[in-house]
Amino acid sequence: MAQPEIHNGGAEKAEVVVSFTAVKPQLVVEAPKASEAVQFYKEAFGAVETGRTTHPKRKAEQELPQIISAQLQLAGSTILVSDLADDSAPVKGVGSGLSLCLETQDVEAAVAKAVAAGAVAEGEIAESDGACCGGRVGKVKDPYGFVWMICSPSAAAKCGDAGVEA
Amino acid sequence: MAQPEIHNGGAEKAEVVVSFTAVKPQLVVEAPKASEAVQFYKEAFGAVETGRTTHPKRKAEQELPQIISAQLQLAGSTILVSDLADDSAPVKGVGSGLSLCLETQDVEAAVAKAVAAGAVAEGEIAESDGACCGGRVGKVKDPYGFVWMICSPSAAAKCGDAGVEA
Repeated sequence: MAQPEIHNGGAEKAEVVVSFTAVKPQLVVEAPKASEAVQFYKEAFGAVETGRTTHPKRKAEQELPQIISAQLQLAGSTILVSDLADDSAPVKGVGSGLSLCLETQDVEAAVAKAVAAGAVAEGEIAESDGACCGGRVGKVKDPYGFVWMICSPSAAAKCGDAGVEA
Repeated sequence: MAQPEIHNGGAEKAEVVVSFTAVKPQLVVEAPKASEAVQFYKEAFGAVETGRTTHPKRKAEQELPQIISAQLQLAGSTILVSDLADDSAPVKGVGSGLSLCLETQDVEAAVAKAVAAGAVAEGEIAESDGACCGGRVGKVKDPYGFVWMICSPSAAAKCGDAGVEA
């Protein structure tokens, strides 16, 4: 009973078992277009915004607050839209584009397992301020070039609690 | 009662209302690496393959059948993995990379609405042989560079019915 969580016959193989609770495509757009992009996804696809986390310390000259993560509901899935910010990205070097956020309780084990399977960890596992809706985020690139942000779901509520622009 | 389906107060605005039933990230990899990629996602993330559609007419010299679409379940979402094939892509010019499949009953209306909101349609709406698990597929690129494959869900069962490699 003091053993780590084991699923799907993991005991026989003595392998690390990691459970994921959600997959969220994250669309990273050139700042400050995330707000405009959110509006587009509402109009084009009927997405519903359920939360938005913005950067508290933004440059005075910026017209729009930097969107760390806007959370949209679309066809039963969650889509995240973020501004790409070179100086304040929670995990440096995320780059613009489409990545996949994978939520898990055990970020370290999940990253280690992905790396053991052939992915390449990029950067350190770090505290996030919400880009992937997670408390801690690790980034891995898989052998096919796709980027997975492995994050803890603890801060998911933060997205929901943040100012919602309806 | 003979009126078209109306949701969310669409009647007042007389706008086209389109419902989406699923969002599925589609990972398109250089052929013939899709099979290897599926194996990777199983090992790295514990994804479970629930269906695979392969091309019936493949080149004799090819060692592996072209994977039109392998359907994986991961954390309650469906992820599609496909081989990029220049000569047999159901929608030409899909390109490798990560796109988002959006399932709807009304592909034409969904594409038209996305275009009206600012997306650019790429190519014609065409019958698919399963790349996006759809009967018909239209491709649009949104103003932020992301590609959405808008497809009918009618052929979703096809993926499940196809040979499953466990």
